[in-house]
Amino acid sequence: MVYAVIGTGAVGGYYGAKLAHSGQEVHFLLHSDYEYVHRHGLQVRSCDGSFHLLQPHVYNDPALMPQCDVVLVALKSVNNGLIPSLLAPLLKPDTLVVLIQNGLGLEADLQQQMPSLHLAAGLAFICSAKTEPGIVNHQCYGYINIGNYSCHEQERVEQVVSDFRAAGVDAHSVEYHEARWKKAVWNMPFNGMTVVLNTRTDLLLSNPYTKQLIYEQMLEVIRAARACGVENIDETFADKMIYNTENMTPYSPSMKLDYDFGRPMEIDYLYTRPLRMARAANCPMPYLEMLEAELRFLEAN
Amino acid sequence: MVYAVIGTGAVGGYYGAKLAHSGQEVHFLLHSDYEYVHRHGLQVRSCDGSFHLLQPHVYNDPALMPQCDVVLVALKSVNNGLIPSLLAPLLKPDTLVVLIQNGLGLEADLQQQMPSLHLAAGLAFICSAKTEPGIVNHQCYGYINIGNYSCHEQERVEQVVSDFRAAGVDAHSVEYHEARWKKAVWNMPFNGMTVVLNTRTDLLLSNPYTKQLIYEQMLEVIRAARACGVENIDETFADKMIYNTENMTPYSPSMKLDYDFGRPMEIDYLYTRPLRMARAANCPMPYLEMLEAELRFLEAN
Repeated sequence: MVYAVIGTGAVGGYYGAKLAHSGQEVHFLLHSDYEYVHRHGLQVRSCDGSFHLLQPHVYNDPALMPQCDVVLVALKSVNNGLIPSLLAPLLKPDTLVVLIQNGLGLEADLQQQMPSLHLAAGLAFICSAKTEPGIVNHQCYGYINIGNYSCHEQERVEQVVSDFRAAGVDAHSVEYHEARWKKAVWNMPFNGMTVVLNTRTDLLLSNPYTKQLIYEQMLEVIRAARACGVENIDETFADKMIYNTENMTPYSPSMKLDYDFGRPMEIDYLYTRPLRMARAANCPMPYLEMLEAELRFLEAN
Repeated sequence: MVYAVIGTGAVGGYYGAKLAHSGQEVHFLLHSDYEYVHRHGLQVRSCDGSFHLLQPHVYNDPALMPQCDVVLVALKSVNNGLIPSLLAPLLKPDTLVVLIQNGLGLEADLQQQMPSLHLAAGLAFICSAKTEPGIVNHQCYGYINIGNYSCHEQERVEQVVSDFRAAGVDAHSVEYHEARWKKAVWNMPFNGMTVVLNTRTDLLLSNPYTKQLIYEQMLEVIRAARACGVENIDETFADKMIYNTENMTPYSPSMKLDYDFGRPMEIDYLYTRPLRMARAANCPMPYLEMLEAELRFLEAN
């Protein structure tokens, strides 16, 4: 299969480079790093083994890219308005588009604009950062779950999982709705709270007040998920997420990095959209509504 | 009547000085400013007319003070554990103690320690600051409401109100529970939110997200007040508070000043205690529970 990566940053750059390094044909769309990567290649400095792609297929214009079988989209979701025009030149009738992005409602919104698209969600569990042009620093974790949203051929989704595994990436095929909501159980409390209180995951959990608050926020997401039809989740999942996070390396979530570096925050898909889904299911999330308002204030001031 | 002031700061210094300036006998207990005020007197720089008390009655030890008819307590409530020992030398059997402090539950807690005390609440609506030793800067507003908590002689409360008025302070006698809760409707949202988002009242209200959040937080307090037996309050009071604040000078509440200057915040009586009362009345305040947790985190980190 021929792969494309739209958004060759800390996440898209990592997963695309792993596939290319394993021998897959991967075409990378770049923006600010194009000149550098065209000359010097793409480096992955990784806890799992570093490598250097000397001459990757790189582009600064999607019109110059070939049609592909699989497109991995790893843009920040604040730029999702660009996706239809970026995708158009890459599509064959059966191209699978995998949105490796955080949040809820991403696939539904894109599907509405492009009704015949074959879509899947990519849930990336990875600590990585692009610290310099053309260099992806992969600190820890790295597995990816793929949930089929609207692809008629589940085999294609399984093939992507299989290609990732062959590339040394721990990958699994998962149920779409359950996977997106389960990721939100972690993402919604920690992304916003680290921004509002200017702190890290470990400090939030070492204070009894914020630990309890994070736990209550997780329960809000779990209840909303159940109200939205996800059955395979209950309150024990919050205990598990708290336990896992306490045993993780102290961590700044992506929204904290975005805020600290003056980049736009992904409030729409991490908060506004899931909050709307929860209200529509008659299961509002008051703590997370408040967190959204605080983030909207910080974004504007 | 003979007055004492315990806590001669921005609030206690202002109200005590106004009474003394009008001819009342007022005995001031001072701590860090004692030497300065003993030598140079107490200055009030006020939007309503400045004045200088050249030789006020000042003390640095309550044991040296005379017994008084009225004691105005204007300590920060984080120091309320000191009140019984500070009060003891000043009390006659019928002394009225007025707690000019922010929060809920202050009188109940002190009454439990000193069951025979005659207590009232002083609700101060004032912008003032002690910027230098012995100098109170009074920027705007200044009225005070007195609510009788446990004084058998309502006449004494009325006499205090009358003395304030004779001193040029707009004062009123009010119903205790209603007055404390109504003040909390403003205090609970604005004190904490200006700290957590490092901002001012006017900016919180000019952002549509935080304006709505502040409004919802006010409704939480109003519902809790009603659940706790305050009948003369409804949701229109929130509209009034929002409108008044939009027409106020941009303002940093006392907790914001405390946090900015590294002083302890009055979280116990402004949040923890009223939150407990609301839960006990089966009317929890989730937005304000979250705000308390955020403040506890900032206090500790």
